[in-house]
Amino acid sequence: MDPSRADAGTKPVNEDSGRNGLALFADLYELTMLQAYFEEDMAEDAVFSLFVRRLPARRNFLLACGLDTVLDYLENLRFSDEDIAYLKSLGQFSDRFLAWLRDFRFAGNVYAVREGTPVFPNEPILEVVAALPQAQIVETFVMNQIHLQTLLATKAQRVVTAADSRPVIDFGARRMHGIDAALKAARAFYIAGVAATSNVLAGKRYGVPVAGTMAHSYIQAHEDETAAYRAFAKLYPGTVLLVDTYDTLAGVHKVIDLAETLGGDFKVKAVRLDSGDLLALSKQTRLLFDEAGLDRVEIFASGGLDEYAVAELVSSGAPIDGFGVGTSMGVSSDAPDLDIAYKLCEYAGKGRLKLSTGKPVLPGRKQVFRISEDEQDVRDLIGRADEDLPGRPLLTLCMREGKRLSPGTFDLDNARSHAQQQIARLPARIRALAGAGAPYPVEVSPALADFQRRVQDEVAS
Amino acid sequence: MDPSRADAGTKPVNEDSGRNGLALFADLYELTMLQAYFEEDMAEDAVFSLFVRRLPARRNFLLACGLDTVLDYLENLRFSDEDIAYLKSLGQFSDRFLAWLRDFRFAGNVYAVREGTPVFPNEPILEVVAALPQAQIVETFVMNQIHLQTLLATKAQRVVTAADSRPVIDFGARRMHGIDAALKAARAFYIAGVAATSNVLAGKRYGVPVAGTMAHSYIQAHEDETAAYRAFAKLYPGTVLLVDTYDTLAGVHKVIDLAETLGGDFKVKAVRLDSGDLLALSKQTRLLFDEAGLDRVEIFASGGLDEYAVAELVSSGAPIDGFGVGTSMGVSSDAPDLDIAYKLCEYAGKGRLKLSTGKPVLPGRKQVFRISEDEQDVRDLIGRADEDLPGRPLLTLCMREGKRLSPGTFDLDNARSHAQQQIARLPARIRALAGAGAPYPVEVSPALADFQRRVQDEVAS
Repeated sequence: MDPSRADAGTKPVNEDSGRNGLALFADLYELTMLQAYFEEDMAEDAVFSLFVRRLPARRNFLLACGLDTVLDYLENLRFSDEDIAYLKSLGQFSDRFLAWLRDFRFAGNVYAVREGTPVFPNEPILEVVAALPQAQIVETFVMNQIHLQTLLATKAQRVVTAADSRPVIDFGARRMHGIDAALKAARAFYIAGVAATSNVLAGKRYGVPVAGTMAHSYIQAHEDETAAYRAFAKLYPGTVLLVDTYDTLAGVHKVIDLAETLGGDFKVKAVRLDSGDLLALSKQTRLLFDEAGLDRVEIFASGGLDEYAVAELVSSGAPIDGFGVGTSMGVSSDAPDLDIAYKLCEYAGKGRLKLSTGKPVLPGRKQVFRISEDEQDVRDLIGRADEDLPGRPLLTLCMREGKRLSPGTFDLDNARSHAQQQIARLPARIRALAGAGAPYPVEVSPALADFQRRVQDEVAS
Repeated sequence: MDPSRADAGTKPVNEDSGRNGLALFADLYELTMLQAYFEEDMAEDAVFSLFVRRLPARRNFLLACGLDTVLDYLENLRFSDEDIAYLKSLGQFSDRFLAWLRDFRFAGNVYAVREGTPVFPNEPILEVVAALPQAQIVETFVMNQIHLQTLLATKAQRVVTAADSRPVIDFGARRMHGIDAALKAARAFYIAGVAATSNVLAGKRYGVPVAGTMAHSYIQAHEDETAAYRAFAKLYPGTVLLVDTYDTLAGVHKVIDLAETLGGDFKVKAVRLDSGDLLALSKQTRLLFDEAGLDRVEIFASGGLDEYAVAELVSSGAPIDGFGVGTSMGVSSDAPDLDIAYKLCEYAGKGRLKLSTGKPVLPGRKQVFRISEDEQDVRDLIGRADEDLPGRPLLTLCMREGKRLSPGTFDLDNARSHAQQQIARLPARIRALAGAGAPYPVEVSPALADFQRRVQDEVAS
């Protein structure tokens, strides 16, 4: 169960997504609008802002994640001959437009908050400044990835908080939504403080530490439980043995018997409880091990856990040394989506917004200023990008003319420690699992509020 | 909005997943167990059964989906040199084992229900019969894909039912969980009866019809709404115009004005309402169009819809001709996961199960017999695979010794019509959106129940 990590662990975790033909990972209307912009010669600079409209129930903040994937995609966005041929087959696109698409590149600027930064409703996580067609076509992909990774980092951070310094291992791959989700999740989870993942491909691709124990099938395939324990412990001396296949406490007794048989060769690190009353079973298991002089054998728990179950076990004094958490963290089961938006807020130098019911947009390019008192962050101010306001600015230029800059080059451990530091600066009520009585204060600067009013008046006229 | 479809639409929708280096898309314990099986010479045939333990709230059945992806993965499963090098770097695997892994192939048999078949709790969706290591290593991937695609097909089928013959278009890509989920969703949705997807890459990859309208950003980027409508309708005469960017009914009036200006050149198919009170707005819009002699212009609605909102609009007589459904369908928001399991139930000719609390397993290879009366399916019987029971068997051999057979070769339209036919055969209360008073009856045959008892006694002893 000690996480293994490849030497590659700290290399930049660049994606290969862009080169892999994801240009068509877009809603059809992006492409039909693109052709319209092309025909209408609308190619002046646009600003699109990506933000979440409101927090899901029980969340007091979001943990921004996914920027690395987005920058890699933008840098490598290309329409292949195959893509062009498919579009042609749809019968809606002119040869002139398709020829133009063949040379299409993203050459815009991206301003974004660092991965692992806590963010609040209406705060831009990312702003794209590019020629209108370039800023438009990337909408679906950019939303999809920031949504997924922010959603899952936010959920995982809650589980890590609940575990109160005990390691949390990601066991979710089998029930997460597809391959990409399971891979990106392992990365987002690690940034959020999860210790390791069971997902080997995520370990290979992102350098996330990998960990694992044994499955019930391994026990079942052996003629008896003891034979399975003996064989596994021989091959992996410091392993974790699963004890609930038939009868949990009987399983624990068999591990104790094995310790007696092996003597000094018994190096088993822990047992795993995966079903039943984890509080009662962990206490009974601890007692049995301690009585047998095996106080160094740890107890690892899994099986349908979420942040509330983990917090309950911890506060009840369950002698559990680590948690394996799967589905509820892997799909963010109590809040499986965020009300994320990617909205045009400026075109051709003019602020833009829409007036659709209940969906306000802050016009123009913006900056978020985080204001602290005594090392604690106390409130945010969303201002216009060129304002000089108190607090530290969260958005930085991380891509210029389609090329990554150093703030857009990522080291996973760096993002992880950034998250830890930034979360620690939040007020205790915001870091708590329960809904905060008073939300974290986020205000709009007078200049931005004024600009919003002026743009509103203009478009409503 | 009329779905476009490439000529490639009906080609077999084979995945390229296997060749793309997904062998390491596995939990670490699969690989450590594999090495243990290798060391212990445990390579006799195993049977693993994949099933869902219980229905999520409000679901009366599941729509099985994802087999095509799984068979493609199994056929192409290979460990690349890069994979082997990564595993070596973890320091847990012997060179002998890694050399063996290099030649590893899946050469087993797969029995499965056809995609688009309704299934119930504890019924095997798929059974793998293969040498133990082969049947074990595929666990994570097989579960991940059948889980995702079955979950989403099941949800989509409910939305389609609610829409009562009006077309439903998938708009979910931006908030689904990653790239793979959004692609597989479009395919699963189509099988479940969704008319088209906005996801262009899904159209290219699977031949699903693609459709789309226009975004608010297109309207906003123009100096006024009318200019945007005029330009878009010129380029795409039969298009759908979005009317809620500033004021919905004012938008409708502008469309009517455009119709008057263009006269016979006005071919706009529909308008889209995307916010506000869709019932009231659709009625007012219908009235305005009818008064203007535009009764052939349709109304398309979207914006935060799920099956309940769609059913409510339909039953309230909203004059809506089609629905765009996004996030709630795309993440199955009210039930974002299934309690799916992949369990060893036979090894070396002996039935196997585990006794973990609340998680029963049916031992041995099985068959599901669906029994009908007067063209309606009335109950299922889960029996042993070699039993001759009344009803039609649902599981067929679709892969033999690692090679696909014809029942495992897929045509998307075929799966879609199969789903439609099979759902129509279910009792009305099971097809309903609300929870069925009495669940669909699923019984275990006496021979299987007897076998389960005997295996239980054996492993408990």
